[in-house]
Order: sequence, then structure tokens, then C-alpha cells
Amino acid sequence: MSVDDARPEAAVPDIGNRRAATIRDVAAHAGVSKSVVSRVLRDEPNVSDERRERVRAAMDELGYRPNSIARGLSEARSGTVGVVINDLRNPWYVSLIEGLATTFDAVDIAPILVDSRLDHQVGRDTVETLLSRQVDGLVVVGTTDARVDVERAAQSIPVVLAGTLEPDLPTVDISVDDDLIGARLATEHLLALGHRRLAHIQGPGLVGTLRRQGFEKTIADSGVAVESVTVEFGGMTEDGGHAAAARLLDSATPPTAIFGFNDMTCLGAMSAADDRGIPVPGGLALIGYDNTQLASLRHISMTSIDNGNFTVGAQAAKFLIQRMDRLTAPQRVYRHTPGLVVRRTTAAPR
Amino acid sequence: MSVDDARPEAAVPDIGNRRAATIRDVAAHAGVSKSVVSRVLRDEPNVSDERRERVRAAMDELGYRPNSIARGLSEARSGTVGVVINDLRNPWYVSLIEGLATTFDAVDIAPILVDSRLDHQVGRDTVETLLSRQVDGLVVVGTTDARVDVERAAQSIPVVLAGTLEPDLPTVDISVDDDLIGARLATEHLLALGHRRLAHIQGPGLVGTLRRQGFEKTIADSGVAVESVTVEFGGMTEDGGHAAAARLLDSATPPTAIFGFNDMTCLGAMSAADDRGIPVPGGLALIGYDNTQLASLRHISMTSIDNGNFTVGAQAAKFLIQRMDRLTAPQRVYRHTPGLVVRRTTAAPR
Repeated sequence: MSVDDARPEAAVPDIGNRRAATIRDVAAHAGVSKSVVSRVLRDEPNVSDERRERVRAAMDELGYRPNSIARGLSEARSGTVGVVINDLRNPWYVSLIEGLATTFDAVDIAPILVDSRLDHQVGRDTVETLLSRQVDGLVVVGTTDARVDVERAAQSIPVVLAGTLEPDLPTVDISVDDDLIGARLATEHLLALGHRRLAHIQGPGLVGTLRRQGFEKTIADSGVAVESVTVEFGGMTEDGGHAAAARLLDSATPPTAIFGFNDMTCLGAMSAADDRGIPVPGGLALIGYDNTQLASLRHISMTSIDNGNFTVGAQAAKFLIQRMDRLTAPQRVYRHTPGLVVRRTTAAPR
Repeated sequence: MSVDDARPEAAVPDIGNRRAATIRDVAAHAGVSKSVVSRVLRDEPNVSDERRERVRAAMDELGYRPNSIARGLSEARSGTVGVVINDLRNPWYVSLIEGLATTFDAVDIAPILVDSRLDHQVGRDTVETLLSRQVDGLVVVGTTDARVDVERAAQSIPVVLAGTLEPDLPTVDISVDDDLIGARLATEHLLALGHRRLAHIQGPGLVGTLRRQGFEKTIADSGVAVESVTVEFGGMTEDGGHAAAARLLDSATPPTAIFGFNDMTCLGAMSAADDRGIPVPGGLALIGYDNTQLASLRHISMTSIDNGNFTVGAQAAKFLIQRMDRLTAPQRVYRHTPGLVVRRTTAAPR
């Protein structure tokens, strides 16, 4: 993977040197509402001749092209892109989708959201379905299983990964947070609080490996004399986190702090502590990853790593738009620097 | 509103008397993979002549039409429908979307998901954007605000409401659960446990009114001598539920049980109890509505009303598909009978 640390750009993408005019720009320029512009576009009768003229003049001046994604791109495009989510039930992707949708909207692209878990359930081939819809591109959000045939899609349309590093292909751009830094922030926080018996619940894929490596390396580099460092595989679901934490808490050297792969596994770990009457954070400190809405619910109030999902989504959209002009351009990778959000599930050990 | 209690039909919609052939049917009939069928459809070279012939024969025999939503419908359709969600951050809609997507898939329709809250945030007109995408129909999921101009959409494309009763328009079908029954189940459960100081946190719109009426009527009809019955407005968010529960718990006659508008408001109420050191369910029983993933998280484990969202979504999709043939057909309403799911937040008062 070539690590070309592209900087995040402004939320509105540039195509060539100039942002494509949108229906909003035309409305503002003509001094009418967007709904009037649309009526003119559809040749509907209920618009005065004078306003119709003003709207048309504004379109000419701004070079507006309805339903095209930008000047210079083919009219043959569908104006839609496929967005594949790994599991709608885990709300980690919400801000990422907001970042994507906001950026795509600026160039009149509509995202078609699909849930690859659901597709698998109903026996549908996600990539095939999207290709037959003639989407102009594909954003793969999060680590999906091998059933999503990204390599095949990348042969005919631009593909970008958001929030995942796999599959790593030469013409598929990547927008992620920096998992090594995120894991370091989480682990340093636990060490600084005085924890010396630490555990990590490892998640799937390369993202899972990087978060684990960040955890282990931070402890090794710290020079702190720790009592135990354990890693349990736990997947990315509440169930997986619950089972992994149960094994950790029932072991001979139970940890005083767990860094979970994501907020969901950490919620499972919280329940494993509940089951055993272990108070959080007094008896067990917990830190998640993703800074989801779940983590910020008052009743949960979980310390987490904010991976900047809105920005990651916006950058993924920009990569995709740029790749529409050059399908085989070399891969670019954007790594967002994450931050620590301290809430009520972390404290010093008792 | 005409209450034509349509029965839920099988998940695969009938158009006319026969289900439209899908790409899967063609693949099965020709004895090849779906990917081969797609390659034939796209006139790609890497398919043997013999298989190409078999696929074409299967298409003829089954009357398959690529990208058309069903035999008899115009080729001019886009094969997409807009699905407007009121707020992606509240995960109540997940099963409903699964029901919609599964049914639409059977007739090769792709849902375009949009978040009306996000649209409002970025200044986008949700209905306008979808109409300019030439969607074949619109599903409005949940109670949205007046900014989603459903009435305008219904003039040119089929529109169905799912999980909401508003706006009630003569040619807009409705698929919902029966809120009066759901509220009755919740309230009977609290009365049966022995609660005599009951409160309800009311949500927005007609759905909010019906759940409140179900609560009040059930108590009145029960003949039980209750000590207090209170209703607080709390909206549909965690924040709203937290504030409403705080007012209830700090009042002169705090309730021993709260029935919340939905799981989200109930989670807010749970945190208000946490703040005051009131144990749930011993000091305060809580029952939500929607039976979301949140309610089933172990750490939350909230008693809730299961409103059958998968079925409600599937039925909404069927209404929409049927309305594509007759835009001005009279309104139909499907009301799903909800069920009670008892978890750990309800018990007898101390």
C-alpha cells in the first residue's frame, strides 16, 4: 500500500479547478427557490415566463448541467454511487455516511446504501446488484467479508474503501483513521490512570491487527512494568465482546482495564462485568473505539476513540469523485488522526 | 383515514398474478451463476456462445426484463425508490429497512436511503432531490417534520408511509403497527406488576397521541384504583426522555413506572434514574417502544413493544409496488399487531 498522506480538503470537492454548480447555486443566482429551478428543469407549466428566463440565464452563466456530476464528465453517468455498509445494526458508520452524503450532494450524486449482511441473508450478490444498477462508483464502508467482490467492481468502476484497509488493491483508494495512533491514545490513557493488568479484545481484519499492534507496542515502548498483557479475539459484535470479556474476567489474572476493538464489543464487555457484579470503572475500566452514538448515551457514557468518521467519509467521497476521471490512477491513502474522548467508563484501578 | 386492514401477504410481491422474474430466476433456469447472466446482459465477451444462448433462452421463457421493475411496467422507470429516514442516529428503523429492501429486491428495485435530518442540516430539499433523481416512488419512514413535502411528491409518484401516520393523504398508503394495542400491552404489563403511580413520556405527532391515548384508556378501562397518572411531553430523543423523566422523578408524586414513547426516550429516562441513584427496575420500572437493537443490548436489556418492523417494511414496499400501476388508487392502511417483549427493566414496585 502506498501511503500518500493526502490532506483532508474542504468539504466541497473541486473538480478541475472549480466546483460544479448545483441546483442551489442556480437558485441563489436567479433569486428563486430550488423548487422553482426544478420546475423549470422539468418543464412544468406553473412558472412565470420571467422567472423561467432568469433561471435559464443563471444556468447558462454558471454552466449548470442537471443530473451530471460535474462539468467535463459524461452525461451517461447515472448520478448514483453504491455505498456498502457491513452491518446496519452497528451504528458506527452514521457520521461516516453523513460525511459521504454531504460531499456527494455538492456534486449532485445520490448514494444508494446497501447492507452487505442483509444482502448475504437474502442471497443477493452486493457488487453484482450495484453494477447492474449502473452506479458510477462504489464506497465500501468498514471491513466486510470476502463475499463483497471489490476486486471485480474495481475493474469497471471507481472504488474507494472508507474505514477499512481491505482489500488492498492498486487502484482502490483508502480513507481511514490511523489505528496505530488510536490504539496508542487508548493504551496511554489506561497506563496513565495506573492500570498494570491490561487486556485488548481484538477485532477482525487488518484494522483489528493494527489496533492490537498499537496496544502492544505502546505498552512495550512505555517502559512501565506491567503485571499482565492479554489479547482475546472477540470479533466486532456485542456478543463477541461479551464472550471475550467473560474469558478475560474469569481467568487467573483478570485485567483491571480492557481496550475493546470497538464500542460494540466494549458494550458486550460492560455486560460481562455487570453479570459478575464488577463495577465499571472502579473494578474494570473500559475504553471503546469509534465514538458512536452508543458511547455517548448517558446510561453508557463510554470512553472511546473518536476516529473522525465524518472527515473520513468526506475524504472517501472526494477520492471517488476524482477517480471517476481516471479509473486506473495510483492508489491514494488518507489517514485521519484520531482523538481520545474520556467519559465515565475509565478511572484508576481500585 | 380509511382503515382497510389489508393482511400482510407473502414477502415476495405479486404483480398482476405472477411474480416478475429476477436475475436469480434466470440464472437458476439457465443453470449458470448470476454473474454469467449479468455478463450476458452487459454484452461482455468472456462468456461462451453456448452459455450465452442458454441465458437468452431462459430470459425469453421467463419474460425477464433487465432493470425493469416488473413485466407490464414502463421501461422508463429508474428502478430506484427513495426511502426517507427521519434520523439515522436512532436505530429503530433497521428492521423496517430490512423488510423494505428484501421485498424491493424481489422485483429488482434499489432503495436510495436518505436522512431527512441530515438533508435539513446541509440545506437540501429531500423530496426535490429525490424527484430530480427520477425515483419511481417514495417511502417515508417514521414521523418526519413538515420540511419533507410528501404531498408534493404524491402528485407525481407513488408514496407510502411506513411507521408513521402522517401526513394522511387520500392516495398515500400507510403501513404501521397498531399503537393503541402496543400502548395497551405496555400499560397492562405495568398494572399487572402492581404499579399504581404511572407515567407516560409522550412523543410527537399522531403516533405520539395514539400511544398516549392507549396508555390513558387502558388505565381507565382497567378499573384499578391508581394513585397517579401523569403524562410529560418528551419528544423522541434520549435528551427529551432524560428531561421529561427528570421532571417526573423530581415531582411531588414521582411515578414507580414509566412507559416511554420509544426506546430512545426510555434510555434517557434510565439515565435520569441513574443520576438520582434510583435503581431500575426496583425503584423505577421502564418500558420502551420499538424493540430496537438498543433495547436488546445486555447492558440495557429493556422491556419494549415489538412493533413488527420487518413486516411493516415489507408491507410498505408491497403497497408502493402496487401503487406504481395506479397512482390515484384509494388509500390502504395496514396495521400490524404488536407484541410485548419483557426484559430486565420492569418488575413489581418495591
